[in-house]
Amino acid sequence: MRISDFIEKKRDGGEHTEEEIRCFITEMVNGNIPDYMISAWLMAAFIRGLNHSETVALTAAMAESGDTVDTSRINGITADKHSTGGVGDKTSLIIAPIVSCAGIKVAKLSGRGLGITGGTVDKIASIPGCKVELSTDEFFTAVDKIGMCISAQSGNLAPADKILYALRDVTATIDSIPLIASSIMSKKLASGADCIVLDVKCGNGAFMRTVEKAAELAGVMVDIGKSNGRKMCALVTDMSTPLGLAAGNAPEVKEAIDVLSGKGPTDTREICLEIAAQMMYLSGKGELDICRAMAEEILDSGRAKAKLSEFIAQVGGNPEVTEDTSLLPTAENVISITSPRDGYIESINAEMIGRAALMAGAGREKKTDAVDPAAGVILKCKIGDKVSAGDILCNIEASDKEKLSRAREFADSAFSFSDSAPTKKPLILRTIY
Amino acid sequence: MRISDFIEKKRDGGEHTEEEIRCFITEMVNGNIPDYMISAWLMAAFIRGLNHSETVALTAAMAESGDTVDTSRINGITADKHSTGGVGDKTSLIIAPIVSCAGIKVAKLSGRGLGITGGTVDKIASIPGCKVELSTDEFFTAVDKIGMCISAQSGNLAPADKILYALRDVTATIDSIPLIASSIMSKKLASGADCIVLDVKCGNGAFMRTVEKAAELAGVMVDIGKSNGRKMCALVTDMSTPLGLAAGNAPEVKEAIDVLSGKGPTDTREICLEIAAQMMYLSGKGELDICRAMAEEILDSGRAKAKLSEFIAQVGGNPEVTEDTSLLPTAENVISITSPRDGYIESINAEMIGRAALMAGAGREKKTDAVDPAAGVILKCKIGDKVSAGDILCNIEASDKEKLSRAREFADSAFSFSDSAPTKKPLILRTIY
Repeated sequence: MRISDFIEKKRDGGEHTEEEIRCFITEMVNGNIPDYMISAWLMAAFIRGLNHSETVALTAAMAESGDTVDTSRINGITADKHSTGGVGDKTSLIIAPIVSCAGIKVAKLSGRGLGITGGTVDKIASIPGCKVELSTDEFFTAVDKIGMCISAQSGNLAPADKILYALRDVTATIDSIPLIASSIMSKKLASGADCIVLDVKCGNGAFMRTVEKAAELAGVMVDIGKSNGRKMCALVTDMSTPLGLAAGNAPEVKEAIDVLSGKGPTDTREICLEIAAQMMYLSGKGELDICRAMAEEILDSGRAKAKLSEFIAQVGGNPEVTEDTSLLPTAENVISITSPRDGYIESINAEMIGRAALMAGAGREKKTDAVDPAAGVILKCKIGDKVSAGDILCNIEASDKEKLSRAREFADSAFSFSDSAPTKKPLILRTIY
Repeated sequence: MRISDFIEKKRDGGEHTEEEIRCFITEMVNGNIPDYMISAWLMAAFIRGLNHSETVALTAAMAESGDTVDTSRINGITADKHSTGGVGDKTSLIIAPIVSCAGIKVAKLSGRGLGITGGTVDKIASIPGCKVELSTDEFFTAVDKIGMCISAQSGNLAPADKILYALRDVTATIDSIPLIASSIMSKKLASGADCIVLDVKCGNGAFMRTVEKAAELAGVMVDIGKSNGRKMCALVTDMSTPLGLAAGNAPEVKEAIDVLSGKGPTDTREICLEIAAQMMYLSGKGELDICRAMAEEILDSGRAKAKLSEFIAQVGGNPEVTEDTSLLPTAENVISITSPRDGYIESINAEMIGRAALMAGAGREKKTDAVDPAAGVILKCKIGDKVSAGDILCNIEASDKEKLSRAREFADSAFSFSDSAPTKKPLILRTIY
């Protein structure tokens, strides 16, 4: 196949065959296609679109372009979850233990955070002693022994996605549903799980701003997974306000431990139980209601917390943090944002809280930045709470005092108030199979 | 301006401002925009299109991106002609002398041939002694002294076009009317002539296959020229069959001298007189009919031939070739293609004759190839001629005997026959001001 013919076909709105797509991805990963040809194709694909079979074929070719997790080394059914990224999303630390307590293997490769979106790997790395870059053997040993493991993505998982993503980022071809869906799903397919639950966030703190766009993306990803033989479910969830109370690495680990201890904010608990239940349901553990009850029982019994503790010990960390969260890193510098008025909290803008946490040092602006494990924003209120002038709305914590003033600007603008109690909005907006 | 915003705007079908386009071209020529961003924009522009003002602005920015011919050094009105490229098009060698004899200055920068399209510079280079790469001073001295000069394009004429063209060639973004029009016209505008006549070819031997596409391109180029203050005319002419009888460098020079001597094929004579007349008309030499009569008188008087001779001498060549064409290089190896049957010549495929000439060594497959000045195809018949089985249809001439067999295959397939005389088709199909 001549690559210029491939580009021309999409330019003119034609449909690629699976073989053409496979050839394009293979040649690209082998370094045989110059960037300018790839980006011309990306723009043509962005404008003309990719239909269902093209998207499925693209995702499969990208998934197979590098290393894949050999789940045949795992005894039993495997389940995975993926969030499209939001502010305060610490759910993996709660869900993985619950699901593995139900006898389902969770072999999870996770990313690092970028921008306002946190990454599970950074959160685990904030636990004293925890190793996040595990060898294949260490990874499978942990899954075999304790039923779960979360590790940083290996260097060669879906290399085709790395090439395409880097080019999309600089050629105005990011915001395309089939390209986003194939990028996410290629890594999920390469990770090998039998059952996958996606948490597609929407709102100002998420990449997808509207529920309709999020549902469209969710639908395409579910279709891709099913066409590749996986059991799939996607939830569309609200990310117009942060999830839970904490945004930042150690602060989020603390909140996860709170939830696993039967405490913590109700929204975090709710979404974790639902995703865990969906993973159990897809894995054949029974009807959804039974799975929901099972997830709740596992959480409330403390077994999930014990599982997280086991995992922390397995990867070299101090398991006592689950009983004593003061062992987690804490920041020396704290400032409080206080309410300028009496009233009700009408909204807490997720993007602004995310930017405040990022400025405090909790995240990365560039991939090569270091993160401050202790930094973050701790909300002291949620939407609908009644506050008085001078009440603390949130604390911003940072190891580097100088970072607090820029963080404050964002946090200040995150809150809006009303005179009467606002209507409570649902957290889980759609469920798509 | 962020280049990714510029790309995004065109991706979404937006309209660029003149300032945005100028910034893009400037940054590109300064080497500040990576190829993958340029090619993403090219694909977006290909699919979404560029409107009149965008195309005019792009062309002007490209024209001003490098050196421009300073026509203020020329005393009097200047006229130029440009052909979009065809097989057997030796018209510049005839038109430039006619027009300069009418008192109009012809300061022409011309290209080398590529593929089946010949280049005037290669034709002049086949005349013993002729220098084609003239310095600026040599160029203006010739124009000043004899009223005409044809030189190879300088290294830095419209460098923006060089960058864009090289990328379009490998990203399936060639075949776009605004991109083609701006590419051609940027070089013409940089060349500085007051009056420009375009010969837009259509048919199998041309880039534009249909008269409608050619007329569309012609219209856009005329508009660009007029919007930049030039007097413009475009002819759409037939290139489904070669122009005249000769295709190849020295063979075409010989045909040009024949026409300047009052001989030669009538189609070559007709198109040269019409283009010369249009150039004279645009230059204010009187009504079109008067200009046509004037062009014919100049040609038939032998003054145009004398002018070519003067030009050849001026650039170091042997002026005697205009009286004795046997001084031109000749090929040692000749094969003849003969008619397989009795009948009428129904068609002579320009592309196939062009490929035969290319295979014989008259042209370049790659820019770096050397050309054989003597090689070419000499037709012995034209459409409508009555032939008998065994009559010679054409001769293929080459210095390298081994090249003749591949050339023969193409020439063989160029001819088709009919039992009755075919209807004669017009050569000049449209005239656009």
